[in-house]
Amino acid sequence: MASFTIPGFLAAAVTAGIKKKSSRLDLGLIHAPAGAAAAGLFTTNWVAAPAVVLCRERLRAGRISAVLVNSGNANTAVGPRGRLDTLLCTAAVARRLGLPPQQVLMCSTGVIGEPLPVHRVTDAIPDLVRALRPEGWRDFARAIMTTDTRTKLIARELRLGAIKVRILGAAKGSGMIHPRMATMLVYLLTDAAAPALLLRRLLREAAEDTFNALSVDGDTSTSDTVLLLASGQARNAPLRPGSAAARAFLQALKEISAELADLIVADGEGATRLFRVEVSGARTREQADRVARRIANSPLVKTAFHAADPNWGRILAAAGSAGVPLDPARLELGFADESSRRQVLVMKAGAPAPGYREKPAAAILRGKSFRVRLNLHQGRASRTITTCDFSADYVRINAEYRS
Amino acid sequence: MASFTIPGFLAAAVTAGIKKKSSRLDLGLIHAPAGAAAAGLFTTNWVAAPAVVLCRERLRAGRISAVLVNSGNANTAVGPRGRLDTLLCTAAVARRLGLPPQQVLMCSTGVIGEPLPVHRVTDAIPDLVRALRPEGWRDFARAIMTTDTRTKLIARELRLGAIKVRILGAAKGSGMIHPRMATMLVYLLTDAAAPALLLRRLLREAAEDTFNALSVDGDTSTSDTVLLLASGQARNAPLRPGSAAARAFLQALKEISAELADLIVADGEGATRLFRVEVSGARTREQADRVARRIANSPLVKTAFHAADPNWGRILAAAGSAGVPLDPARLELGFADESSRRQVLVMKAGAPAPGYREKPAAAILRGKSFRVRLNLHQGRASRTITTCDFSADYVRINAEYRS
Repeated sequence: MASFTIPGFLAAAVTAGIKKKSSRLDLGLIHAPAGAAAAGLFTTNWVAAPAVVLCRERLRAGRISAVLVNSGNANTAVGPRGRLDTLLCTAAVARRLGLPPQQVLMCSTGVIGEPLPVHRVTDAIPDLVRALRPEGWRDFARAIMTTDTRTKLIARELRLGAIKVRILGAAKGSGMIHPRMATMLVYLLTDAAAPALLLRRLLREAAEDTFNALSVDGDTSTSDTVLLLASGQARNAPLRPGSAAARAFLQALKEISAELADLIVADGEGATRLFRVEVSGARTREQADRVARRIANSPLVKTAFHAADPNWGRILAAAGSAGVPLDPARLELGFADESSRRQVLVMKAGAPAPGYREKPAAAILRGKSFRVRLNLHQGRASRTITTCDFSADYVRINAEYRS
Repeated sequence: MASFTIPGFLAAAVTAGIKKKSSRLDLGLIHAPAGAAAAGLFTTNWVAAPAVVLCRERLRAGRISAVLVNSGNANTAVGPRGRLDTLLCTAAVARRLGLPPQQVLMCSTGVIGEPLPVHRVTDAIPDLVRALRPEGWRDFARAIMTTDTRTKLIARELRLGAIKVRILGAAKGSGMIHPRMATMLVYLLTDAAAPALLLRRLLREAAEDTFNALSVDGDTSTSDTVLLLASGQARNAPLRPGSAAARAFLQALKEISAELADLIVADGEGATRLFRVEVSGARTREQADRVARRIANSPLVKTAFHAADPNWGRILAAAGSAGVPLDPARLELGFADESSRRQVLVMKAGAPAPGYREKPAAAILRGKSFRVRLNLHQGRASRTITTCDFSADYVRINAEYRS
């Protein structure tokens, strides 16, 4: 396993006092001293954080040198000052690192509707910059956590011809799982050389079946951000669209993204199981997506699976209410364990499958992860959404929270 | 208050042994000896119960004489036999009452995917028919209950000129709130005279802001049914479209529908509070509806309100992810108690309202019912959705259920 360093990047974290529990790390920094090609994906929420708006603008140039991340405050829905505070914080980082401000991004996650304590951020920046080091990633991963119970940090190596290239991934959160401490944040760093336009395309492709295919509670945060930064320090011939090297890199990027996405879902608040809703035989991918998401976000399906209850009537009811035309007489439903070694056919041609028994189905559902397979038998499109069960702990955590 | 009888209709219930707890009433019957003009509204779920399909077909003629209702089994997703069993049961009722089978409707609610014990139903029909009486409505309302904690039965009187007319409403359930015992069923009976075409229009209009504007968990059952039957025994001049009498009748129908809808939401599983999400200032009613439903169905909003937590960041995040373009800088948000006597402005022009304090907001949210008001300030359309909070009891009831 690769170590948690990545040529061309430094990381750091400090305690700035933004979080209520003021002893926790809450301010992180990524620095690429020689700059990095960069691409990003962001929340589709119309109430987007000012930090998200700033990232979108500054990524147009395709090259950045630093990313400042604070947890504890989303700096969202605070009026025009949200934008100003984001500019102030990134300007402070730029000044200290000797960079043009346009090369500094910012991400904010936490309380919505409360002003960012901007001086706590700017006061902490000298210490933060002094703390920058190649091995700073564990601290960084801890500083971006909110209700996460585990840091999420993965490294991968791959070979592009004779050259060894690394990808490092750091992530937090899981949809909008916590009261006022929202947000999925993902940082993918590589020492590979690649132009920003290609990075954008690769990132979009890697996210499609990973970060864009997960859900904890169907609530979309205002700050979701996935960044891909490439330092080029591996000195490979820059990746070119369509090349074998680009395909190999994409494959590795997909794998690390899938692994981070699973870590995020598995750490969903109150979650005890992860399950994948695999919808196939749809007319279009968009229809498969709608049916899969409807099932994945159904509170009745999620609570049944919490109890390992193969309550497939709920799955059908959810599927039928996705707004996608279905022929009930064609539906085929099954359960499988993660490896697909054990499989149970539940329903065929719209009726219970001959020989279906609940016990082996329940045995699959008692696993830490499993698959729900629904074939609509009306086309060739498919889509898989990964999600988690819904426990009383989720309600407890989210209802009993008081600011 | 009017008594629970309605000229032109009889009702009855028996214990047929369909429910697992076999001592409970589980088979109900409505009989209009002289027939009734009839209209219906049904689930939009593509996996609709065979009983729903049959109702749709038989209502085309606009006139029916009996409605058989069973709880304990939805007779859904059982293959072609579902249709046959529905035909068998309604034929048995028709034979016993001396009616053409086309004049008998059926509704089924309960387990999905298990064959209906059709002989228990047909064996019970002689007793059921013998039990028919003008005062049978309390038994009927009890027989259609599944996880409901209360029977839902309301009567109203109104005057159409010199003639007194009655409307009786019986309902069960609340969206798809229970594991395998789903469904909202509503029966509206009147002695007014009105043609079926007009009834259809009036029912649609009355349901729009009542039964079509409520949600418990966002899960749509496969059997939702609302029926309106008019015996004409009041001997009023038949209602005509656009007449003052039709308007008066519609008004009464809306009131009884709204009251039943509130009873359904308030009896939502694990619910402790009812709240109305009032979205205004939208470009179109459809956009207002999408934003209101997104907020009403957000697990994070529902769990916050369970704790009377005015966690308005969650409301904004839900609103922004409804797929409706929003300008965050225009949003205005407030809370009000049911009567609108106490009001708190939370946010104005996208930022916390000057002088907003959490304490008075929390006081409103501690009520049994309250209003959430979000003005998008981009048009004149509005929509209100009524829903309930989300408690650990909901998860407990739905996760710990085993068949």
